[in-house]
Amino acid sequence: MLLPAIVGIIYHELISAGAFAFVAVLMVIAGTLMSLKKPQKKDIYARDGMATVAATWVLVSVLGAVPFTLAGEIPDFVDAIFETTSGFTTTGATILNDIEAVSHACLFWRSFTHFLGGMGVLILILAILPQNDTGTMHLVRAESPGPTAGKLTAKMSSSMRMLYGIYVVLTLLEMIFLLFSNFSKNPQQRMNFFEALTTAFSTAGTGGFALKNASIAAYDSAYIDIIVTIFMFLFSANFTLYYFLLTKKFMQILKNEELRLFFGIVCISSLVIAFDIMPIYGKFFTALRYSSFQVLTVMSTTGFATADFTEWGSLSQMILILLMFVGGCAGSTGGGLKIIRVLILGKTAIREVKSVLNPRSVVTVRCDGKAVDKEIVRGIADYFVVYMLLLAISVILLALDGHDLGTTSTAVITCLNNVGPGINEVSPSGNFANFSAWAKILLSLDMLLGRLEIYPLLILFTMRKK
Amino acid sequence: MLLPAIVGIIYHELISAGAFAFVAVLMVIAGTLMSLKKPQKKDIYARDGMATVAATWVLVSVLGAVPFTLAGEIPDFVDAIFETTSGFTTTGATILNDIEAVSHACLFWRSFTHFLGGMGVLILILAILPQNDTGTMHLVRAESPGPTAGKLTAKMSSSMRMLYGIYVVLTLLEMIFLLFSNFSKNPQQRMNFFEALTTAFSTAGTGGFALKNASIAAYDSAYIDIIVTIFMFLFSANFTLYYFLLTKKFMQILKNEELRLFFGIVCISSLVIAFDIMPIYGKFFTALRYSSFQVLTVMSTTGFATADFTEWGSLSQMILILLMFVGGCAGSTGGGLKIIRVLILGKTAIREVKSVLNPRSVVTVRCDGKAVDKEIVRGIADYFVVYMLLLAISVILLALDGHDLGTTSTAVITCLNNVGPGINEVSPSGNFANFSAWAKILLSLDMLLGRLEIYPLLILFTMRKK
Repeated sequence: MLLPAIVGIIYHELISAGAFAFVAVLMVIAGTLMSLKKPQKKDIYARDGMATVAATWVLVSVLGAVPFTLAGEIPDFVDAIFETTSGFTTTGATILNDIEAVSHACLFWRSFTHFLGGMGVLILILAILPQNDTGTMHLVRAESPGPTAGKLTAKMSSSMRMLYGIYVVLTLLEMIFLLFSNFSKNPQQRMNFFEALTTAFSTAGTGGFALKNASIAAYDSAYIDIIVTIFMFLFSANFTLYYFLLTKKFMQILKNEELRLFFGIVCISSLVIAFDIMPIYGKFFTALRYSSFQVLTVMSTTGFATADFTEWGSLSQMILILLMFVGGCAGSTGGGLKIIRVLILGKTAIREVKSVLNPRSVVTVRCDGKAVDKEIVRGIADYFVVYMLLLAISVILLALDGHDLGTTSTAVITCLNNVGPGINEVSPSGNFANFSAWAKILLSLDMLLGRLEIYPLLILFTMRKK
Repeated sequence: MLLPAIVGIIYHELISAGAFAFVAVLMVIAGTLMSLKKPQKKDIYARDGMATVAATWVLVSVLGAVPFTLAGEIPDFVDAIFETTSGFTTTGATILNDIEAVSHACLFWRSFTHFLGGMGVLILILAILPQNDTGTMHLVRAESPGPTAGKLTAKMSSSMRMLYGIYVVLTLLEMIFLLFSNFSKNPQQRMNFFEALTTAFSTAGTGGFALKNASIAAYDSAYIDIIVTIFMFLFSANFTLYYFLLTKKFMQILKNEELRLFFGIVCISSLVIAFDIMPIYGKFFTALRYSSFQVLTVMSTTGFATADFTEWGSLSQMILILLMFVGGCAGSTGGGLKIIRVLILGKTAIREVKSVLNPRSVVTVRCDGKAVDKEIVRGIADYFVVYMLLLAISVILLALDGHDLGTTSTAVITCLNNVGPGINEVSPSGNFANFSAWAKILLSLDMLLGRLEIYPLLILFTMRKK
């Protein structure tokens, strides 16, 4: 929070700067006081770890909201919690009607929460979850050829440093490429340092908060669109693949089924949508620029906008809504079900059909050339069931708030998958301001459940004192 | 087809009567000719059985459509196939803009296909499917305490006779109760014999074809609404429960978890919707009459209408759309996922969450007091995955036809679950006439896939000559 305070000072926004500095100081004091009480037990079990992670995410979402309200930028505290949760969970759904009226300090904080949230997800997926022996960890073991050590060992610690290194380097690279937009002759198509940095933060976490009301569309620049599209792809690809890149194991990357499926879906969806929307944009390559951006913004679960896809045909919209469920690769900052799960679910369906067609055949689910453990396959199918049940419950509850069916269902879909925009009221040109306070809390919970892959939050809520 | 021919003669509709009689005679000739060729092998395996069933359903849907076109009542043959498939699969989705303009013979045939389809489903579920050793049969074994013999034995044959007896008696009972409407002082609220019979046929198969453009709403009679509501419940409850009723095993009925869940969902949904729509209807009991009818028409997957639920609030609509997925009990003529599957999916979700919360605990899924076999639980979760995948593919394909998102998604949901109406263009006051020919074929396939629980049709399409 000292960073947004500094940003506030630079831009002479003393109220915002003061709010962030004040909360930062308070938290240092509270933290110091709390650390005086030494814990009785030092052993941390998997369940404790998951509950701690969940508690941390809830806590940062609430504490991170305080400066918004304190500075008067988001007067309603529930709105501020929604915005901050949306930030840390890298969802990118906003309740702000006029983003451009917000102070630089607050805008920086919004994008920075995405960046921090992305870092949190990388730890979560690669360090905390593999320790637990059921449910979610199946996914990681299933696909992660990288670190699977049982404890936060020295090796794991160095792996994390390496991952963070990749994350920071990619973010800086995107910022630098975005700064090249300043060579454009058209002033509208240039990004200044602040814009490039915050956009890079938002892309890194696959969040989606932008500095303009029109999101990335405000720049109307093919160059910026393409750079952001490429980096949305890079940040939603499995980070362990960058290990292989650094260690020159190129064959491992090419053979990775998840990456190939990701790339395949992106190409096919972009082309289909491009043909569908060509009548709107006239030229094929303009249509492809918008369609590929939109496909990646949805699949990476970033949620930037260069066009309001709710004005496109229903084929394009339907594809995009389904892609919201798919999400990015596991081991990335992307949300959704994750491509590896969709891959294994698809193979499960094929195996099931095959076993009905030929009852005597024993068909195992294979991935990357290896048979996937039966328990992992079962775990993923069960995760899907839990996930759909959660979706159904959320949709029914949100329907109590009285918005139309499209708004209600896509608001839940977009929050649970950490995407950002939906259709109708919550379309890329709309926002979440019209929901009532309890609906915003419900959607914030959905964002947290989606981001933490459901179980850690459930563990937190069912913890009992021992 | 001789029955609608007779109906045509009674009502002096000679063209329709001739069309049905002509096709009937043709089929007798074709059937006789085909039966001259004796099959080389007489052994029928499970796969052959399932393929035969699927082929039969496809065949009757196409052949049953011929008289509609021949009589000129549904000139377009694809329309006629859609209507007949909708009839035999007991869906009840129609392409007719003006039902009241159709001849009695054709109207009788429409409702009679529902009745025959219902009989077909009862065979399918209780006789054919248990023979197969994977996939769908899990469901039957899971819940059916009735006949589970491996072959169509004498015992099975007598069980089927008993089931058909119950089916016919219930249909006749409904007809008789509907005829009591003639004691009403208001002529509009009376049903003549023809109306009572066809309405009973449509209810028995949980189909939904009605004789009036306004469906059951045309009678505006609380008495008729209540009778139809009760029989929709009876026809979508597990038929094996009627065995228990006849053999006086009342405790078995009360302990049946599927029935209890069914009853629970009906009561809660009806009450919630009644409160939601009370402002529209003024009185609570009027609201409850409409809400309970609508809940049962959707859960039993009948699809009759006494009100256009798309004019209700989004909470009511969302509940009804989700109930379309739930469907009726297994072993009934109702469609959808089936309540037993939803029950076991829910318990699977709870077990999965529990096993994450407490990794050391071994949690088994129990139903009716007994542990459900692991393979059955896995089979149901996998069926759900296949089902959702099929739904996603159908929605994307149907989106090519260019209807709005609500129409596209609910058209697939309502056809795959054999319900009938959806929202927007396909609302209870709309119909399926505006879809293009290939979209109607796609939706017909969805109806067949939903009705036959996916696998038999896939087996048929992948059969190779040996």
